[in-house]
Amino acid sequence: MIQIFLFDEEKNCHKDLTLDQIRISLPNPDHLLWVNLANATPQETQYVLGDLFNFHPLTIEDCLSVGYQPPKIDDFGSYLFLIVHALHPDHRLDTLETFELNLYLGENFVVTCYAEESMPPVERVIQRLARDQRVYLNGSDFLCHAIIDALVDDYMPLVDQLDDELDDLEDAVLQKPHPITLQRILSIKHSLMTLRRILSPQREIINRLTRDEFPMVDKQSQIYFRDIYDHLVRIQDLTETLRDIATSALDIYLNSTSLRLNEVMKALTIVSTIFLPLSFVAGVYGMNFHFMPELTHPWGYPLVWVVFALIAGGMVLFFKKRGWF
Amino acid sequence: MIQIFLFDEEKNCHKDLTLDQIRISLPNPDHLLWVNLANATPQETQYVLGDLFNFHPLTIEDCLSVGYQPPKIDDFGSYLFLIVHALHPDHRLDTLETFELNLYLGENFVVTCYAEESMPPVERVIQRLARDQRVYLNGSDFLCHAIIDALVDDYMPLVDQLDDELDDLEDAVLQKPHPITLQRILSIKHSLMTLRRILSPQREIINRLTRDEFPMVDKQSQIYFRDIYDHLVRIQDLTETLRDIATSALDIYLNSTSLRLNEVMKALTIVSTIFLPLSFVAGVYGMNFHFMPELTHPWGYPLVWVVFALIAGGMVLFFKKRGWF
Amino acid sequence: MIQIFLFDEEKNCHKDLTLDQIRISLPNPDHLLWVNLANATPQETQYVLGDLFNFHPLTIEDCLSVGYQPPKIDDFGSYLFLIVHALHPDHRLDTLETFELNLYLGENFVVTCYAEESMPPVERVIQRLARDQRVYLNGSDFLCHAIIDALVDDYMPLVDQLDDELDDLEDAVLQKPHPITLQRILSIKHSLMTLRRILSPQREIINRLTRDEFPMVDKQSQIYFRDIYDHLVRIQDLTETLRDIATSALDIYLNSTSLRLNEVMKALTIVSTIFLPLSFVAGVYGMNFHFMPELTHPWGYPLVWVVFALIAGGMVLFFKKRGWF
Amino acid sequence: MIQIFLFDEEKNCHKDLTLDQIRISLPNPDHLLWVNLANATPQETQYVLGDLFNFHPLTIEDCLSVGYQPPKIDDFGSYLFLIVHALHPDHRLDTLETFELNLYLGENFVVTCYAEESMPPVERVIQRLARDQRVYLNGSDFLCHAIIDALVDDYMPLVDQLDDELDDLEDAVLQKPHPITLQRILSIKHSLMTLRRILSPQREIINRLTRDEFPMVDKQSQIYFRDIYDHLVRIQDLTETLRDIATSALDIYLNSTSLRLNEVMKALTIVSTIFLPLSFVAGVYGMNFHFMPELTHPWGYPLVWVVFALIAGGMVLFFKKRGWF
Amino acid sequence: MIQIFLFDEEKNCHKDLTLDQIRISLPNPDHLLWVNLANATPQETQYVLGDLFNFHPLTIEDCLSVGYQPPKIDDFGSYLFLIVHALHPDHRLDTLETFELNLYLGENFVVTCYAEESMPPVERVIQRLARDQRVYLNGSDFLCHAIIDALVDDYMPLVDQLDDELDDLEDAVLQKPHPITLQRILSIKHSLMTLRRILSPQREIINRLTRDEFPMVDKQSQIYFRDIYDHLVRIQDLTETLRDIATSALDIYLNSTSLRLNEVMKALTIVSTIFLPLSFVAGVYGMNFHFMPELTHPWGYPLVWVVFALIAGGMVLFFKKRGWF
Ligand SMILES: [Mg+2]
Ligand SMILES: [Mg+2]
Ligand SMILES: [Mg+2]
Ligand SMILES: [Mg+2]
Ligand SMILES: [Mg+2]
Ligand SMILES: [Mg+2]
Ligand SMILES: [Mg+2]
Ligand SMILES: [Mg+2]
Ligand SMILES: [Mg+2]
Ligand SMILES: [Mg+2]
Ligand SMILES: [Mg+2]
Ligand SMILES: [Mg+2]
Ligand SMILES: [Mg+2]
Ligand SMILES: [Mg+2]
Ligand SMILES: [Mg+2]
Ligand SMILES: [Mg+2]
Ligand SMILES: [Mg+2]
Ligand SMILES: [Mg+2]
Ligand SMILES: [Mg+2]
Ligand SMILES: [Mg+2]
Ligand SMILES: [Mg+2]
Ligand SMILES: [Mg+2]
Ligand SMILES: [Mg+2]
Ligand SMILES: [Mg+2]
Ligand SMILES: [Mg+2]
Ligand SMILES: [Mg+2]
Ligand SMILES: [Mg+2]
Ligand SMILES: [Mg+2]
Ligand SMILES: [Mg+2]
Ligand SMILES: [Mg+2]
Ligand SMILES: [Mg+2]
Repeated sequence: MIQIFLFDEEKNCHKDLTLDQIRISLPNPDHLLWVNLANATPQETQYVLGDLFNFHPLTIEDCLSVGYQPPKIDDFGSYLFLIVHALHPDHRLDTLETFELNLYLGENFVVTCYAEESMPPVERVIQRLARDQRVYLNGSDFLCHAIIDALVDDYMPLVDQLDDELDDLEDAVLQKPHPITLQRILSIKHSLMTLRRILSPQREIINRLTRDEFPMVDKQSQIYFRDIYDHLVRIQDLTETLRDIATSALDIYLNSTSLRLNEVMKALTIVSTIFLPLSFVAGVYGMNFHFMPELTHPWGYPLVWVVFALIAGGMVLFFKKRGWF
Repeated sequence: MIQIFLFDEEKNCHKDLTLDQIRISLPNPDHLLWVNLANATPQETQYVLGDLFNFHPLTIEDCLSVGYQPPKIDDFGSYLFLIVHALHPDHRLDTLETFELNLYLGENFVVTCYAEESMPPVERVIQRLARDQRVYLNGSDFLCHAIIDALVDDYMPLVDQLDDELDDLEDAVLQKPHPITLQRILSIKHSLMTLRRILSPQREIINRLTRDEFPMVDKQSQIYFRDIYDHLVRIQDLTETLRDIATSALDIYLNSTSLRLNEVMKALTIVSTIFLPLSFVAGVYGMNFHFMPELTHPWGYPLVWVVFALIAGGMVLFFKKRGWF
Repeated sequence: MIQIFLFDEEKNCHKDLTLDQIRISLPNPDHLLWVNLANATPQETQYVLGDLFNFHPLTIEDCLSVGYQPPKIDDFGSYLFLIVHALHPDHRLDTLETFELNLYLGENFVVTCYAEESMPPVERVIQRLARDQRVYLNGSDFLCHAIIDALVDDYMPLVDQLDDELDDLEDAVLQKPHPITLQRILSIKHSLMTLRRILSPQREIINRLTRDEFPMVDKQSQIYFRDIYDHLVRIQDLTETLRDIATSALDIYLNSTSLRLNEVMKALTIVSTIFLPLSFVAGVYGMNFHFMPELTHPWGYPLVWVVFALIAGGMVLFFKKRGWF
Repeated sequence: MIQIFLFDEEKNCHKDLTLDQIRISLPNPDHLLWVNLANATPQETQYVLGDLFNFHPLTIEDCLSVGYQPPKIDDFGSYLFLIVHALHPDHRLDTLETFELNLYLGENFVVTCYAEESMPPVERVIQRLARDQRVYLNGSDFLCHAIIDALVDDYMPLVDQLDDELDDLEDAVLQKPHPITLQRILSIKHSLMTLRRILSPQREIINRLTRDEFPMVDKQSQIYFRDIYDHLVRIQDLTETLRDIATSALDIYLNSTSLRLNEVMKALTIVSTIFLPLSFVAGVYGMNFHFMPELTHPWGYPLVWVVFALIAGGMVLFFKKRGWF
Repeated sequence: MIQIFLFDEEKNCHKDLTLDQIRISLPNPDHLLWVNLANATPQETQYVLGDLFNFHPLTIEDCLSVGYQPPKIDDFGSYLFLIVHALHPDHRLDTLETFELNLYLGENFVVTCYAEESMPPVERVIQRLARDQRVYLNGSDFLCHAIIDALVDDYMPLVDQLDDELDDLEDAVLQKPHPITLQRILSIKHSLMTLRRILSPQREIINRLTRDEFPMVDKQSQIYFRDIYDHLVRIQDLTETLRDIATSALDIYLNSTSLRLNEVMKALTIVSTIFLPLSFVAGVYGMNFHFMPELTHPWGYPLVWVVFALIAGGMVLFFKKRGWF
C-alpha cells in the first residue's frame, strides 16, 4: 500500500494524490511530502524510490531485502537514509523480534518503507496528522522526529514487561527452582542482549542527528532528537539493570541445585548413619554361635533396646550439634 | 511548594516574594535569583518554568515526567539544564533508590525542581543561606556548586554503610552460610552496580562543568566543581573495591556449599565403610548352614568380636591416614 | 594457472593474452587489466608480480607464504595490497577454515593471487564478466568491489548453518545431554570466535576503502564498499547473537549434569531411607535372644508387617511433602 | 613537625629556619625551598599552606582530610598539587594499606604534607640531601622527582613479597587445600586489585609530568619522570601476572574440592557395591525356611564362601577396569 | 664480550677494531657502526655507552639492571633506545621465559646490549653479515630491522609448540583427565598470557617505527618494519586462538570431574537400590517369629527367589528406561 501526504504552502494537508503528483511537488521547496510504502510490491517500491525519487539503488536493495539488518544512517548529500528497528506489536519476551523501518529524509520530503503488514509507530503518526498540526508545520526533520519518537516510545513498555517477568522469575527461583525457570531466565537474558544490540547503534544514529551535521536537520529539531537520545540512554540503563537482575537470578538458581543436593544427601546420611550401626548390633545378636552368653541373659533383649536408643540418640545429638537439622 | 530567594545589588537576601517579582529581577544582571519548586503542581511548574523563565518545553517535560532518567547536562546557550540524582534519605541498602533533582543554571539565576516531598541536600543549602554568605556572594555558579556538593556529600555515608554491611556478610559467609546470605550479597552487589551506573554520568557532567565550556561557570567555580569531581572519583574507587569484596564473599559462599557437601559425604562414607563390612560378618554367622564349624567353637563368638574390632580399627586408621578427620 | 582479462578503450573484453601484452596495456590509463594467479608456481608468481608489475617484494613474500595471515590493507601509493579471507567451499562447522585471497588494486588494474586450487568468489566474478558489463565498465575499484562482495556473500550461508547447528544443539542439550554435545557446543563457539577474529579486521579494511583515502577508489565505489561494510556489520551482529546462544546452551548443559546427579541421589536416598529402617526392624526380630516376648505372640508377625507398612508409608509421605517425587 | 630546607644562590643548605624566613626566600627565584609538614597540627598546616604559601583552600582541605583519596594532579598555574600513595612501612599483604603524600611543586619550592608519623620515602630523601648534592642542584622538579622515585621504589619489594606468598599458596593448594587457603588467595587477589587501582592513576599523573605541559618541569626532568613511568609500567605488568597466578590457584583450589568429593564417593561406592551383595547372600542363608536344601548340604557353607569370593573379586576387577583405584 | 663492526664508505666490513676507533668513525655520517655488548662487564658497558656514545645515564641504568622490564621505545632526538624481548633458546612451555635486548639506533650506528651469554637472533644476524650485504648496505635502520626481524621470527615456532602441546592436552582431557592435566592446561594458559603481555607493547613499538616519526628510519625501512608488525599481529591472533582452545580444554576438564562423579554415584545407586530391598526381604524371613506360615510352606523358599528376581528385574528395567546404563 502506498500513502502520500502533501502539505502545501498554506499548510493544507492533501491525502489521496496519485504517484505522479510527486513529480510536481518534489522540486517545490515550500511543499512537504510524506510517502509511506507499507508492504508495497517490489515493483511499486522500485518505481517510487528509483524512478520518482532517484534514490541510490543500494538503498532500494536494503528496502527490498529481507533478513536482519543492523540500524544505520547513510548520508547521500541531498538526503539521508536510515534503518531503525520497531518492536513487533505482539513480540514475545523470550524471543524478542523487531522489524525494520527504512526512512529517507530530504529537505522537503520523508519516505518511509517497510515490509510488514502493520507498523504501529508510523500508523500512530498518520493518525496524529489530523489532530496535531505541529507534526508537519516544522518541516521534514520534525516529521522524521515524530516517527522515530513514536517508534522509540514502544521500547519502554517492553522494558517494563521484561521487568515484571524477571520479578516473577526471581520469586520462582527462590520458591521452586525448575529447569524451565532456568530456560526462561536465559531467554530473558538473551532478549536483553538482543535489545542492547539494537539500542546501541540507534543511539549512535540519533546522536549524529543531534550534532551539527546535516543541512536538513535544523537547530530546533536537534534539541528534539536529543530528547529521543535521552530516552534511548534511559532504556539502555534499565536494560543493564535488568541484565544484572537476570544474572543474579541465574546465580541463585544454580546455587539452589547444589543446595538441594546438600539437603538430599543430608537426609541420606542421617538415616544411614543411624540405622547402619543399629542393624549391625541386631545382626550381632542374630548370629548363631552356640556360646553367646548375652542371648540367655534375661535382661539381654531389653538392654539391646537400650543400646539401640543410645546409638540413635547419640547420632541425633551429634547432627544437632553440627547444625544439620 | 515554591520558594523564591532574591539577592539584590547590596547582597541582601529577600525571601517571601511573589512569582511576578521574578519578571522584574530576571533582566537585572546584578540580581541573583533562586527559585525552588519542591513538589509543585504541574500547573505551577509549567507557569514558572514555561511562562516566567521561558525554558525549553522538553526540559519542562523532563521535570514533570516520573520514572528513572539518567543524569545529564543540556546546554541551551543562555542556560544549562542538569539532571542529577540524590539519595533517598531513608534508602535501603539492598534496593538502592535515588531521586531526581532537575536544575537550571543561568547567568543570574538557579532554578531547582523535584517531585519529592523532601530533598535534603537542597534543604541544607537553604538553611546555610542564613549563616554563610559565601553561598550566594559568588554568583549563580557557586550556588549551583553548593547544591550539588551537598547532594554528593550524601553518597559517602552510603558507601560506609555498604562497607559495614559487607563486613557483616563476610563474617556470615565464613561462619554460617545460608541462602539468605547469598541473597543479601547479591542485593548489595546489585546496589553497587546501580550506584556505579549513576556515578559514571554524574562524573562526566561535573567534568564538563570544570572545563572551559560554559559562560555562566567562571574559572574560580571550575576549581570548586573539580573538588566535587574528586569526591565522585573517590566514591567510584571505593565502590569498585566494595564490588571486589562482594565478589569474594560470593566465591567463598559458593565454595562453602561444596565444602559442606564434602563434610556430609565424608560422614556417610566413614559410617558406611565401617558398618557394612561388620554387618556382613555378623550376617555370615547368622546363616543357618548345618555344618559351620566356627559356630560350635567355644572361642568363635569372642574371636568374631576381635574381627569386628580389627575391621573397624583398620578403617579408622585408613581414614586418619587420608586426613578425613 | 594465470588468467588475464583486458578491457580496452571500447570496453571489449580480451581473454587469452600472453603475459607480455601486460607490459603494453599497463601504461594505458584507458585499459583495465585483471590478472588472476590461481595456484600459480612461485616462478610464475614472482615473474608476474615482481618483473611485470614491480610490486614490493614484501607483498610477493606475503603472496607466496603459507600459514595464517590476518586480513590487512597496505598502501603503496600507486597501488593497494589487500589480504582478505574467503571461506573454504566445504568448510566444516566445528573447525572453521578460511583461505587467503591476495589482491592488488591499481588505477587501471586488479591482480588477484591465491594458493588454493579453487577460489569460488573469484570464479563467480569471472563467470559474471560475460553476462554483466557493469563489473568492468566502472573501473578497477568496482571490479575489486565485485570480488570482495562475492567473497563476503559466502559468509551469510555459513552463519545460517551455524544457526541451524545451534538449534539442534539446543534441543540436544535439553533432551539428552551427552559429553559429545558439550564438545560440539565448544567447537561451534570456537568457530564463532575464529569467524569474529577474521570479520573484525576485514570490517576495518572495508571501512578504510569507504573513506576518502585512496585515489583509485572513487566516490561512487565508496558507496558500494559501504554496502559490503553493512554486510560485515550484520554478520558480526548475528555472530554475537549466536555466541550468546552457544553460551546459554553451555550453561544449560553444565546445569543438566548437576540436575542428573540430583536425580540419581534422590533415587538412592529414597530407597535407602525406606529400606534401612525396615531392615533394622527385620534384623531385630532375627535376633536369637531366648527371652523375646514378641516372637511368641500370635499377632507378632502380622503386626511387624503393619510396622513395615507404617514406616514405608511415612517415608513416602515425607518425600511427597518435600516434593521429591 | 615542620622541617624547612633552604638552598641559596651558592647552593648551600640551611636547615633550622623559622617559618617567617619562608616569606623572604619565596620571591627569590634563585632560592630553592622545601617545606615538609610531617604530621603537623591543622593550625600549623593552615598557617604554612594558607597564610605563607597562599595555596588554594580546596588543596588545604585535601591535605587535612582523612580517608581514602585517589591519586591526582591539579594544575593551579604557578604551582601543581599532587596526591600520591606510599606503601605503609609495615603493610600486611592480605589487607594492603597505603597512605597519602600531598605534594606542592612550584618554580622554586616543594611542599610535602602527610598525616602519618613516619613517611619513609620522604625521610630517605632528607637523609640523601646531606650526601648527594644532585637532589637539590637541579631545581624543584628534580627534588620532586627524587621524592616520588623513592616512593615508587617501595612498590617493587611489595610485588616480590606478593609473589613469594603466591608461590606458597600454589604449593598449599596442590598439597592440602583448606578453606583458609581460599581466604588467603582471595585476600591476595584483593590486595592486587587495590594495588592496581592506585597504580593506574599514578601512572597517568607521571605521564602528564613527562609531557611538555608544566613550566616548572624542564626537559631534563621529564626524562627522569619517564624513568618512574617505566617502573610503574613494570609493576603493573607484574601485578597482572600475579593476578593470573592467583586466578589459576583459585581454579585449582575449587577443582580440588570436587576431586576430593569424587575420592570420598569412590570409597563409599566401592565398599557398598562389594558388601551389599555379600550381605544379601548371607541374609538369604539366614532365612528360616524349613525347606532350604543348600543348608543341609555338607559343601553348602564352603561354597557360600566361594560365592562371596567370586562376588568380591568380580567387583574389584570391575573397578580396576574402570580405573577407580 | 664486545664486538665492533664498521662498514666504511666503500661498504667494506671491518671487524677487529679497538674501542677507541669508535671515536673516529662516529662523527663520519658515511660510516655505519654496530657495537654489540654481549654479557659485558658493567665497567665496559659504562665506558662504551657512557663515555664513547654519551647515551643518557637512565638508558645505561636500564641496560645494567636485572629483572623484568616491559618493552619500550624512548626517543632522545639523535638516537632511539629500545627494549625488546627475545625468547630463551631453551624456554619451557609451562613457564615461558624471555630475555631483554637493549638496542640504540642512531643515524649511523646501532648498539645492542644484553646480559645473557647467548642471544641467538643477534648471533644469526652477525653470521648473515658475511653472506648478505643487504643487511648493512641500507643503513642503520635496516640493520636494526634485521635484528628485530630475527628476534620476532623465533616467536612463531614457540606458538607452534604451544599448539602441539594443547593438541596433546585436548586428547588427555577427553581420555583420562587427571589433576596434572589441569595444571598443564593452566600453565599453558599462563604462558599464553605472558606472551600476550610482551607482544602487545612490542607491536606498539614497531607501529611507531612504521609511522613517519623518526629521522633515522626512512620510508623504505618503514615498509620493512610494517612486515614485522604483520608478523606480530599474526602471532597475537594465533595466541588468542590458542587461549580459546585452552579455555575449552579447561571447561571439558572441569565438566569431566562432574561426569565421573555422576558415573560413580550411578553405580552406587544401582547396587544399593537393587540389594537393599532384596536384603530386606531376606531379613524378613530371617525373623524368628514362631508363627510365620510362609516358612513352613514347601514352595516358600523357591517363591522367595521368584520375589528376589522380580525385584531385581524390576529395578534393572526401571534404570534401563531412565537411561542409566
Ligand atoms: Mg531490509
Ligand atoms: Mg519519546
Ligand atoms: Mg523489579
Ligand atoms: Mg525485583
Ligand atoms: Mg532484536
Ligand atoms: Mg526528555
Ligand atoms: Mg517526548
Ligand atoms: Mg523527571
Ligand atoms: Mg563535598
Ligand atoms: Mg555514591
Ligand atoms: Mg571491610
Ligand atoms: Mg577536595
Ligand atoms: Mg568540599
Ligand atoms: Mg600468504
Ligand atoms: Mg553482497
Ligand atoms: Mg535459533
Ligand atoms: Mg578457530
Ligand atoms: Mg545493502
Ligand atoms: Mg587527605
Ligand atoms: Mg625508582
Ligand atoms: Mg613466582
Ligand atoms: Mg610460582
Ligand atoms: Mg592500595
Ligand atoms: Mg629505567
Ligand atoms: Mg631510578
Ligand atoms: Mg635491564
Ligand atoms: Mg620475520
Ligand atoms: Mg590444534
Ligand atoms: Mg614473546
Ligand atoms: Mg609479510
Ligand atoms: Mg621477513
